[in-house]
Amino acid sequence: DTVLVDRPTFAGALVAFSMQRPVFVGVDIESDGSDVPGMRLKLEELQLKGKKPKFIYVVPDFQNPTGITMSLAKREALLDLSYQFDVPIVEDSPYRDLRYQGETIPAIFTLDQRREGGRVIGLYTFSKLFCPGMRVGFNIGPAAVIERMTHIKEGNILNTPKYNQDICTAFLEDMNFEAHISKCQDYYREKLAIFLETMEEYFPPEMGVTWTLPEGGLFLWVTLPGHIDTDELFFDAIEHKVAFVPGEQFYGEKPDHNHMRINFSFVSKEQLAEAVKRLAECIRKRL
Amino acid sequence: DTVLVDRPTFAGALVAFSMQRPVFVGVDIESDGSDVPGMRLKLEELQLKGKKPKFIYVVPDFQNPTGITMSLAKREALLDLSYQFDVPIVEDSPYRDLRYQGETIPAIFTLDQRREGGRVIGLYTFSKLFCPGMRVGFNIGPAAVIERMTHIKEGNILNTPKYNQDICTAFLEDMNFEAHISKCQDYYREKLAIFLETMEEYFPPEMGVTWTLPEGGLFLWVTLPGHIDTDELFFDAIEHKVAFVPGEQFYGEKPDHNHMRINFSFVSKEQLAEAVKRLAECIRKRL
Repeated sequence: DTVLVDRPTFAGALVAFSMQRPVFVGVDIESDGSDVPGMRLKLEELQLKGKKPKFIYVVPDFQNPTGITMSLAKREALLDLSYQFDVPIVEDSPYRDLRYQGETIPAIFTLDQRREGGRVIGLYTFSKLFCPGMRVGFNIGPAAVIERMTHIKEGNILNTPKYNQDICTAFLEDMNFEAHISKCQDYYREKLAIFLETMEEYFPPEMGVTWTLPEGGLFLWVTLPGHIDTDELFFDAIEHKVAFVPGEQFYGEKPDHNHMRINFSFVSKEQLAEAVKRLAECIRKRL
Repeated sequence: DTVLVDRPTFAGALVAFSMQRPVFVGVDIESDGSDVPGMRLKLEELQLKGKKPKFIYVVPDFQNPTGITMSLAKREALLDLSYQFDVPIVEDSPYRDLRYQGETIPAIFTLDQRREGGRVIGLYTFSKLFCPGMRVGFNIGPAAVIERMTHIKEGNILNTPKYNQDICTAFLEDMNFEAHISKCQDYYREKLAIFLETMEEYFPPEMGVTWTLPEGGLFLWVTLPGHIDTDELFFDAIEHKVAFVPGEQFYGEKPDHNHMRINFSFVSKEQLAEAVKRLAECIRKRL
């Protein structure tokens, strides 16, 4: 089977899909989301070979690992591809509610519902919008697909722990969902702002380092000059007691080596600023 | 791949293994556990075809669905097969601590440790010995196998929910494990006794119905005259507001149709007696 993905894309999804040993076809992501014309070309190439991807996998909102959000126009265009080539879209959106600025863009699932529907499978989780370690998720999609997913899940883990489902039910029924999300947004918004400010201070343009400007989510993506291998840089960073995820893991095929995924959600504001300073030192040594 | 199993065996394992589309080779279980000479014959047959099962799967303690326990002699003999044919044993033992009478028999894993070791993978869970719905399990086996299982688990569900692991840790550290197990044993022992008494009362020998006599666990296995299909009987039973699991689901291949798995652990003592009475009525109608 073939799966069409962004380059880079969520490493956990690549690992999960890998259990079925698919061929990943990747297209470089752009600052406003998937390169839809690039994906069209791949679909045409595959079509000539008589092949059709099993699905297109995207994380349209504050993508893991880049923090990039797909524009409305691209969501519609991606949906066009789905209809034209008869390939479903798997829309993974764990961070969707964690928007810190700008307007929420309709989910591809929603856009599909406004047309014929049935082309999009939506993946969501309580682990990001309620609290981590919950491991309770929910899916939307055609009934036949959800039923099949239920069977696969049953084969793998029988079912989701009862207590965790109960905790999530209580969260939805008894807590103020809007107030909770709003609190999370304020909390992360401030951290992201500090992170970006410190990046500007310690990574002046002449360093040749660039980064994405997420409007939400938990990550951003830093691109270093091409000769710096972030797999190696990682060990320097660890020695300076700062960590990131080397970009290599986020590629279905032909990984780039000069990227880092930075998580700004967990550490304190003070630690964030210090971490950026230390990272800058490590990178300077390799320029 | 081929997997060697008892007939019948745990349906959940069959479903889990089925995800890799194996061929199940089944050997009828005996009242003291797996038919080891029968399994030897199957291994020899496969060997002649140049085939070797991926593993032998057994539930040696109070087997699901039959409640049968494998004797010490058979455990050693099964281990002999494992060494001779170089086929690992997967020992699934969720009910091991729920013994209501008789002596605990060493786990096959333990017997293997007394020889060379490395032949047995042990599967355990907190869902039966602590409380249901916990969905936290633990495995023992060669480090390389456990590492591989960890990766597969990571691909499937990333990790076990943190809270559930914490609850199980607290159970082991802060609760009196022995006292808890002893309480569970008393609770289930009484139910099993009532169940067996009522069975003797409502299923006189001339009915041609037989059942296993488990020394522990949560189930027993009832065998009806061959012409009664328990898949059909199930609907009669449901109408009389009593349920069982039709035996058919517990076969890797060539299912038998005249068995029922009965769970005596959940309902009250009064309900148990009434349930047996109603089941007997349903069966009488089909004799």
